[in-house]
Amino acid sequence: MKKRILISNDDGIHSPGIQALYEAVKDLGDVIVVAPAGEQSAVGHAITLSDPIKARPIARPDGFHGFAVGGTPADCVKLAVCALLPEKPDLILSGINLGPNTGISVIYSGTVSAATEGAILGIPSVAISLGSYQTPRWETAARVARQVAQQVLRGGLPPDTLLNVNVPNLPAKSVRGYRTTRMGRSRFVEKFDRRTDPQGNVYYWMDGDLELLGDEDGTDIIAVREGYVSLTPIWFDLTHRAALPAVKKWNLKWRKP
Amino acid sequence: MKKRILISNDDGIHSPGIQALYEAVKDLGDVIVVAPAGEQSAVGHAITLSDPIKARPIARPDGFHGFAVGGTPADCVKLAVCALLPEKPDLILSGINLGPNTGISVIYSGTVSAATEGAILGIPSVAISLGSYQTPRWETAARVARQVAQQVLRGGLPPDTLLNVNVPNLPAKSVRGYRTTRMGRSRFVEKFDRRTDPQGNVYYWMDGDLELLGDEDGTDIIAVREGYVSLTPIWFDLTHRAALPAVKKWNLKWRKP
Repeated sequence: MKKRILISNDDGIHSPGIQALYEAVKDLGDVIVVAPAGEQSAVGHAITLSDPIKARPIARPDGFHGFAVGGTPADCVKLAVCALLPEKPDLILSGINLGPNTGISVIYSGTVSAATEGAILGIPSVAISLGSYQTPRWETAARVARQVAQQVLRGGLPPDTLLNVNVPNLPAKSVRGYRTTRMGRSRFVEKFDRRTDPQGNVYYWMDGDLELLGDEDGTDIIAVREGYVSLTPIWFDLTHRAALPAVKKWNLKWRKP
Repeated sequence: MKKRILISNDDGIHSPGIQALYEAVKDLGDVIVVAPAGEQSAVGHAITLSDPIKARPIARPDGFHGFAVGGTPADCVKLAVCALLPEKPDLILSGINLGPNTGISVIYSGTVSAATEGAILGIPSVAISLGSYQTPRWETAARVARQVAQQVLRGGLPPDTLLNVNVPNLPAKSVRGYRTTRMGRSRFVEKFDRRTDPQGNVYYWMDGDLELLGDEDGTDIIAVREGYVSLTPIWFDLTHRAALPAVKKWNLKWRKP
């Protein structure tokens, strides 16, 4: 039976990354694209509760079809699975994102949030990002996407897990292989540029530099830096289990009035 | 030395919950409020990169002062710590949120994201939410906020940990105590209400019901339901460590072109 594949992203349905992803996997099953109408980067795991969500059908001559959604990546996946698609997909692919989703960036990533939403809904889900903002080598990331999609369609993913894939921005022949990694701890260290508008109001632009913090051995960040594709299993249970005993030890007693 | 406390939230700087939180802790240190100018619920861990972020000073006769920020809760904490405050705060409190942040809801929560941002910046951070949308008993949640703030100012939090606190919507004398919990697995199961606008365009409203999924013993959801305040240590490392061996076992070989 033909597999059903849902594609989404956060750069928007008109981005080159989602087109490259479509082309890479279009012959692996019935592919439908449900993605934001506009760019939705760094939206984190946002959902739209207080506004209506518009969905406009899209069909291109090359077979690329689906819906442009006036919402976040998480909205797209929820809406697709719960309302737009006739049946649950066998695989969700989110990407290809322009720019890495490694280290702490993962928690701000719309690309990853689409895949997280898929995992919450019990569907094997993969986020794919390309590790550069300049002269993106979509063909390398597309090759990775196809290989990983085939693997997941064949063997699935562990329960409650999505796969966060980051691809080095190299020619395909220079990629050194795959590495299973953990999420790094490094993050952008913010600088805020303070300005004043013509009316005298203060505003800020957020900017920053990636700072390598602590030991990053075995992380997504180092793997990509060394020319490997990183495969990081991610989940949505945020409990810090190692910290439970410390909180328990407080033995906090409720002070009744 | 006087402790510095930063307050934020996602319901906005004019919400009753943040006022109740301010009043509960104002004598515990130098308190400053940096919160969204408008409501920012279910924004997840979004940050504002492509737009300028406005910050307008606010001061009320009761001493409540700080900045109303045209951004998300995560923006507020970043901007406060990196640009607005003269020194790093000793404690960040986010809330009091109207409505619970338990189970899967945690990943959509702006309230929790403000505290997560604090933890990323290395500051002890606490999110406080009240378990009902109707007739909120702010006085109960305020009492909890004060007690937990005192505990954290005294003893800190484990590294890389924020504390997610959920308060049952009961009179203070009926609260049964504190419980250290894990994040539940239950979630809203979405329904989408399909409508057509006067121009014939299709749109959807997202709605849903909380569905108890699987064994929720020991979770935030059950604790609040049974009349306890839940204390859940949360972190920002999303790696699903238990799933690492399964991905490694794929032993995926890179297919060079």
